[in-house]
Amino acid sequence: MEMTDQASQFAFSARAGRATRQPISYLMSQAVTNPDLISLAAGLVDYQTLPGAEARDLLNEMLADPARARTALQYGTTEGLAELRTELLAHLAGLDGLTPADLNASPDDIIVASGSQQILFMLTDILVDPGDIVITAWPSYFVYTGTLAAAGARVRCVDMDSGGMIPGALEALLGQLADQGLLPRVKIVYLVSYHQNPTGITLAADRRQPILRILREHSRDHRILLIEDAAYRELTFEGDPPRSIKSYDRANQYVALLQTFSKPFSPGLKTGYGLLPRDLVEAVILQKGNHDFGSANFCQHLLLAAMRTGVYQRHLDELRRQYAAKRHAMLEALAEHLGDFARGQTHWTRPSGGLYVYLTLPEDMDTGREGPLFARAIEEGMMYVPGEYCYGPDPSRTVPRNTMRLSFGVASVDQIRQGIERLARAIRKQ
Amino acid sequence: MEMTDQASQFAFSARAGRATRQPISYLMSQAVTNPDLISLAAGLVDYQTLPGAEARDLLNEMLADPARARTALQYGTTEGLAELRTELLAHLAGLDGLTPADLNASPDDIIVASGSQQILFMLTDILVDPGDIVITAWPSYFVYTGTLAAAGARVRCVDMDSGGMIPGALEALLGQLADQGLLPRVKIVYLVSYHQNPTGITLAADRRQPILRILREHSRDHRILLIEDAAYRELTFEGDPPRSIKSYDRANQYVALLQTFSKPFSPGLKTGYGLLPRDLVEAVILQKGNHDFGSANFCQHLLLAAMRTGVYQRHLDELRRQYAAKRHAMLEALAEHLGDFARGQTHWTRPSGGLYVYLTLPEDMDTGREGPLFARAIEEGMMYVPGEYCYGPDPSRTVPRNTMRLSFGVASVDQIRQGIERLARAIRKQ
Repeated sequence: MEMTDQASQFAFSARAGRATRQPISYLMSQAVTNPDLISLAAGLVDYQTLPGAEARDLLNEMLADPARARTALQYGTTEGLAELRTELLAHLAGLDGLTPADLNASPDDIIVASGSQQILFMLTDILVDPGDIVITAWPSYFVYTGTLAAAGARVRCVDMDSGGMIPGALEALLGQLADQGLLPRVKIVYLVSYHQNPTGITLAADRRQPILRILREHSRDHRILLIEDAAYRELTFEGDPPRSIKSYDRANQYVALLQTFSKPFSPGLKTGYGLLPRDLVEAVILQKGNHDFGSANFCQHLLLAAMRTGVYQRHLDELRRQYAAKRHAMLEALAEHLGDFARGQTHWTRPSGGLYVYLTLPEDMDTGREGPLFARAIEEGMMYVPGEYCYGPDPSRTVPRNTMRLSFGVASVDQIRQGIERLARAIRKQ
Repeated sequence: MEMTDQASQFAFSARAGRATRQPISYLMSQAVTNPDLISLAAGLVDYQTLPGAEARDLLNEMLADPARARTALQYGTTEGLAELRTELLAHLAGLDGLTPADLNASPDDIIVASGSQQILFMLTDILVDPGDIVITAWPSYFVYTGTLAAAGARVRCVDMDSGGMIPGALEALLGQLADQGLLPRVKIVYLVSYHQNPTGITLAADRRQPILRILREHSRDHRILLIEDAAYRELTFEGDPPRSIKSYDRANQYVALLQTFSKPFSPGLKTGYGLLPRDLVEAVILQKGNHDFGSANFCQHLLLAAMRTGVYQRHLDELRRQYAAKRHAMLEALAEHLGDFARGQTHWTRPSGGLYVYLTLPEDMDTGREGPLFARAIEEGMMYVPGEYCYGPDPSRTVPRNTMRLSFGVASVDQIRQGIERLARAIRKQ
């Protein structure tokens, strides 16, 4: 046909120019093309635990009623199904032993979206102009780091220890930014408050109120938003998790608490939710109106049924048992195969929930994607996430090269044992 | 508690400052609070036609197989389910009597998203910087106008007649922009090519190739994207619809063809798709990676089953019969109640598909939301979409005040008859 001439190029926007490929996509494609590889990289939930039979029963009942079926198959609302938002608010308050009134919150402060990632994106979009500053932990969740890059945000990071983000370090950073006259550019502090991705570390109970106080004290020019990403909160399988940071934000002003159905129930339904400070809700709804004017209503009806019938809670109890066993297998295998390796320089986290263990090796060992250890691990038949991916682009810091994220989410107990054994072989060959 | 002091304000981004409330949200809330109101406003599909029984059968079969159930409940991919994209490419090519090879397209050129709206948003986001120019029809789909406002786009409009967008008018506008040195800012031409929202008009077959030629001739500095929004294409119930504009873009370079499952099957599954020029695909996937890294996989598996089993096509055939009857009722009622009203100054479109009839009244009649006719129509017990909402903010043009969009999507045949009768009463009381 006539249209096959050489065309000129598209002229992309500044935003498109800032977007970067998620580093994890390379790892994903490796796992797909090499089926013998044991991947301890993917942060997916365990395929075997997905609630197929539960979904079938719930849908059968839901769709047997023609009116209910049609309502679920019709458009929903931009902010999400009202009954589900009511249920979710009670659920969130209940996790903290509180009522919605204690949180000074109404169902209209809840937004349902296509995963909590979409809420992360929207909150960033409505608050961050290029050059604005977002503070994250060091290390932190790397997909959000990509979102910040596309938004043109400057990233500054705060050290963690075994209790999570260190309040004094956050205070020092904010003080330093204030001294530099940069406080007006600080828009968001982001942290994963339970079983953090990538470290598995939970923010200590006695740090929660102090972090909120520090944030409030530095909200002089304008309010700084604390995004409390609690994606792994309900996957706690040891001890009682601390109260959310949100539970201390009693006027519903500073904290956006994000949770999701992807980890505790099913990622295929792609439904997350957030309890937002009231004066952010309208701006988020306006953005969502432009994105998609509402996430899949059908999935929201299914999840409402799962919550109301107790199926959600029963499934979660079972999940916790299974993940606890897998975490145990990973910690046991690490002790067995790496317990005597470079003592004092090799250590790993012992998460009380979630999907991740974070391993630190001696400083001269390079875990990077282009380094020798990653290649040897692939040769041995296992894959991990190089720690280098998990550190935001803070220009004042040097990315450590000797860490890795190990996930016990997807692999079976046997694969976990074998995967750690293979990893140890790769490490000892150094 | 201690956190209830007066907090400072959030500092919103420039983008948030540009977002505007969709005017339609007021109309939606009216319809909800006034159940006796016959709404010919909402552009929703007919609740009665939604495929509840079909979905139940498909899901029962799908979820009876544990492996298939788990796959559907697990994460999908950012770009969408590969098998569905393969099916959709063949489907799109088939609608034009072509093969994928004829379109020089592969399944990797298809993106699945949370409705075609999300693809509209992403294409705009990757191409448009504030101040860039997007060309739309006069009138055009108002949700996209809101997206353009949030993006900071300048909107320029092109006249339509009964054959849709007038190629000569598009050529004149692009020529004028070129003379003004503004061609480097023109990024997108947007048009709804079948049964347009809001007019119901289909772009004439003999205008399709000329519009593509004009676009190509003005893609000197950079390539201008033509977004062909074909949301209503499959809801054609009279005659054969013309070939898509995309079908003339044989090198897959200039046209993004967007379709959706929301109109022909179920909006609750919130799944749309686009066939994109190959050199836009990566940028869209990167954006989607930041938004949500993939739309609900579960819905995509259900839709794949609907297409493969023929359920989708059978449902669509039935839909066409039902909508044809409703369009007939609306046109008949308009002829009965307004056929003799202000002859020569009152006219309406006769769509061959879709959901909309566009009514033009004498120029001195104000159909606006704040005008007397809208209030009288509500008093009489019906609601329409004021035409004023459907015109982009082109500074060189004056928005007509004497038009309205009437939808036969949601209302029953009886409600349509009654709604038009009520509208005619409101008009005659002027």
